[in-house]
Amino acid sequence: MLDAIPPGNPLSGDEFDELELPLRMDLLAAQQSLAAANRATILIIAGVDGAGKGALAQRLCEWMDPRGIETNTFWERSDEEDSRPYFWRFWRRLPPRGEIGIFLGSWYTRLGRKAMSGELTDGEFAEGCQRIWEFERMLAEDGAIIIKLWLQVGRDARRQQLQERAGKQQNPRVTDRPYELQGDYDLSQNIASEMIQRTNSLYASWHLLDAEDKRYRDITAGRVVAGAMQRHELSVVGNQIDHAVEKPSTPSSLADVDLSRVLAKDDYKDQLSKWQRRLQDLAWQRYREGRSLIAVFEGWDAAGKGSSLRRVTNAVDPRLYHLARYAAPSDEELKYHYLWRFWRHIQRDGRFTLFDRSWYGRVLVERVEGFAAENEWQRAYYEIAEFERQLLDNESTLCKFWIHISKDEQLKRFQERESTPHKRYKITQDDWRNREKWSDYETAVNDMLAATSTRAAPWTLIAGNDKRYARIQILKTLCQAMADDSNEG
Amino acid sequence: MLDAIPPGNPLSGDEFDELELPLRMDLLAAQQSLAAANRATILIIAGVDGAGKGALAQRLCEWMDPRGIETNTFWERSDEEDSRPYFWRFWRRLPPRGEIGIFLGSWYTRLGRKAMSGELTDGEFAEGCQRIWEFERMLAEDGAIIIKLWLQVGRDARRQQLQERAGKQQNPRVTDRPYELQGDYDLSQNIASEMIQRTNSLYASWHLLDAEDKRYRDITAGRVVAGAMQRHELSVVGNQIDHAVEKPSTPSSLADVDLSRVLAKDDYKDQLSKWQRRLQDLAWQRYREGRSLIAVFEGWDAAGKGSSLRRVTNAVDPRLYHLARYAAPSDEELKYHYLWRFWRHIQRDGRFTLFDRSWYGRVLVERVEGFAAENEWQRAYYEIAEFERQLLDNESTLCKFWIHISKDEQLKRFQERESTPHKRYKITQDDWRNREKWSDYETAVNDMLAATSTRAAPWTLIAGNDKRYARIQILKTLCQAMADDSNEG
Repeated sequence: MLDAIPPGNPLSGDEFDELELPLRMDLLAAQQSLAAANRATILIIAGVDGAGKGALAQRLCEWMDPRGIETNTFWERSDEEDSRPYFWRFWRRLPPRGEIGIFLGSWYTRLGRKAMSGELTDGEFAEGCQRIWEFERMLAEDGAIIIKLWLQVGRDARRQQLQERAGKQQNPRVTDRPYELQGDYDLSQNIASEMIQRTNSLYASWHLLDAEDKRYRDITAGRVVAGAMQRHELSVVGNQIDHAVEKPSTPSSLADVDLSRVLAKDDYKDQLSKWQRRLQDLAWQRYREGRSLIAVFEGWDAAGKGSSLRRVTNAVDPRLYHLARYAAPSDEELKYHYLWRFWRHIQRDGRFTLFDRSWYGRVLVERVEGFAAENEWQRAYYEIAEFERQLLDNESTLCKFWIHISKDEQLKRFQERESTPHKRYKITQDDWRNREKWSDYETAVNDMLAATSTRAAPWTLIAGNDKRYARIQILKTLCQAMADDSNEG
Repeated sequence: MLDAIPPGNPLSGDEFDELELPLRMDLLAAQQSLAAANRATILIIAGVDGAGKGALAQRLCEWMDPRGIETNTFWERSDEEDSRPYFWRFWRRLPPRGEIGIFLGSWYTRLGRKAMSGELTDGEFAEGCQRIWEFERMLAEDGAIIIKLWLQVGRDARRQQLQERAGKQQNPRVTDRPYELQGDYDLSQNIASEMIQRTNSLYASWHLLDAEDKRYRDITAGRVVAGAMQRHELSVVGNQIDHAVEKPSTPSSLADVDLSRVLAKDDYKDQLSKWQRRLQDLAWQRYREGRSLIAVFEGWDAAGKGSSLRRVTNAVDPRLYHLARYAAPSDEELKYHYLWRFWRHIQRDGRFTLFDRSWYGRVLVERVEGFAAENEWQRAYYEIAEFERQLLDNESTLCKFWIHISKDEQLKRFQERESTPHKRYKITQDDWRNREKWSDYETAVNDMLAATSTRAAPWTLIAGNDKRYARIQILKTLCQAMADDSNEG
């Protein structure tokens, strides 16, 4: 495929000058119009080592308004990145809506390198491409324009160029021993071809171009970028796509929960202290192993999320957990894909990240209240599956709790809160309003359970009418999930 | 001083239980009231190694609502922190308004360790304390409640405890060889005493307490914390304080700028290419040396900040610069001290961080438009001096440009923008309104120049009526500042 790229047409300086000005106007206009439309642009510049990826990035920044463009590389080691799920580093560098992110290193870099070194089976390589495909689809469906350029130069031209330029190059990262000089050129081309084929999608297509002549390279790339930015109206946002989601192992629904379960006070005391001690030890053990726990707490209003969470946090050294609460997104968070604000709280390996409400808000409150359009919450099921897969791939343990109570029990608790002065702040008009939509929420919860309870990340339904019973179930589930994962490892 | 701490009064389990409940209610009420008042609380827990700092933090999280408390340690290496000015790591961990940050490691840690190892002269130690003193004052003046606890245990008790607990301790960071066991106990106590004395202030006082009995420790610390949180109405916010600011070496004012300076087109072309080449080389050299450039671009509306910045960015590989634009703060930024949003953009060592408008907005637009109260912008002069000192201490080069134009020239440019279709978006009603306040801005600029043009971080006034002349001056100044710093180094 890569050798079938049509050869470039070398341009003279005069030809270049003539083509440059109108192209520049087009790029600037497209940049302004996307900024006004609040659309993020992601531009990946990949290609043969030393084909001028950096020079092209610089040219594009020169042609457009550098205010609103961020160029990302991953040259420097970052132990904060190394100690989190792999995609965390990309999520945090994504451009906000209205701006442009150029990626000179990207989610393709590691996969390509691993394939070159022979570490991957064919299946693993295909799987890696699939993860990228899904990631890009997710961003595109959220409105991002994704443009991917591959800069190609022929082997002989490259060898000559590299030898000539040795010593003059300032960029510290042009590989000391490029594949061309090592005899790995053909392999690298084959891997690149396959990666490109497997990740070429409607959402994010690859544009291959001959980069031997610099002027031709810059003009052609500029035109591709301008064209893609101008065509943004045609992009796939809002399309309905059939998202395949892994079927749950044990579909369960709220009706399955036995709300009559109770725990006597004395039993509770014994079990609480037993499981809290166990949790404390496991937290330290996990810290030493560098393995994280991610726990999601969802449930009806007044189901006891807060008091259950306290039984967890009280047991764990506060240096080992981070508790993230979610209500309405901030204006900064609204500038990104809705998953961004959960990614940003993922802690370094070996910690607990506790989510008091979570990414499931998308298919619960946002669905029921209409904050998310139907196609948005529909596709959230597969987006969530992708997100959780990233967490699991990083050897995190993931626990998801829905604390269930009956509608009567909720009423009792609401009334109690209203009549207790120091609890009154906990109850608002919103809570009463949500209660009126109980059956809509019930549907949403059951759909969520059916769609997102996978073998590796099952939901645990907690019978919450008896608070003591609920708290112990949660502590026990957390401990057992971590113990199970350790046995596996 | 530390041996004069009144001895604690050991508490029985029953006594503790009796005292615990009312204290807990007080703490919870104080936490809620500070959350409602949008006040951040910073709690530093320091003390003798192994005195139970972590256990106390856990107790406080248990007593209060863990939602809204973040416990910070600096156990793990972070090369992202190591490669930025020292205080960056603390700025990014500060609690937002309404929440509580517990610091088990803090800005005291490194200073104490360096003093112990004998690396510091007395002057350097005093200087280090002074920086902390100023940092805490800055946060307190912004409304933060700062509570500092020192937990003390006697030498003999400690030795016994440490020996007993060896092996049972899960916390990986209790020093393997505590000072007590090494014969350095007295030295560590002397250093701690001096550090405490030098950093005890109206804004942030130290509370020393005997930690030998755990129950007494927790109850006493809890009371200190509750008391400090309850007294917040009395705190120093809004007080007028005489801030000593280093006098500028060469006070200059807008009137000194010779606006008649021009540069012919041919000269411009030659010089532009000369200085851009120089800048490009310096950017790579700086990258290799790991030394940053921080450049601030301020000036009248339509003075040419954007087009000057482009002449800088066009010369530099986009992988080496980050361009940060500032307009109104986001809602997340409003939750912190106003300097927070500038700290967050400081790049890793070896990069350029270019500020298109900057922290000087506090003493310019915020002053003139009344967005900041008088005491707020008045104290900003010393806050800025502290901030810039941190940057310079990290061996960054700091350049600050004010691009000056005449009032007539501004009018000409406004009119030109309005009559040119593709420039019309650049001019708004705000620009015309600001123009009416020209003389207020003039006063603010001159005050700023007088107060913040220090020897190490001087302002460069750029004559901007001729754009070509201005651009070359800026490029030249940047190159020379970096060259000068290299010669010194």
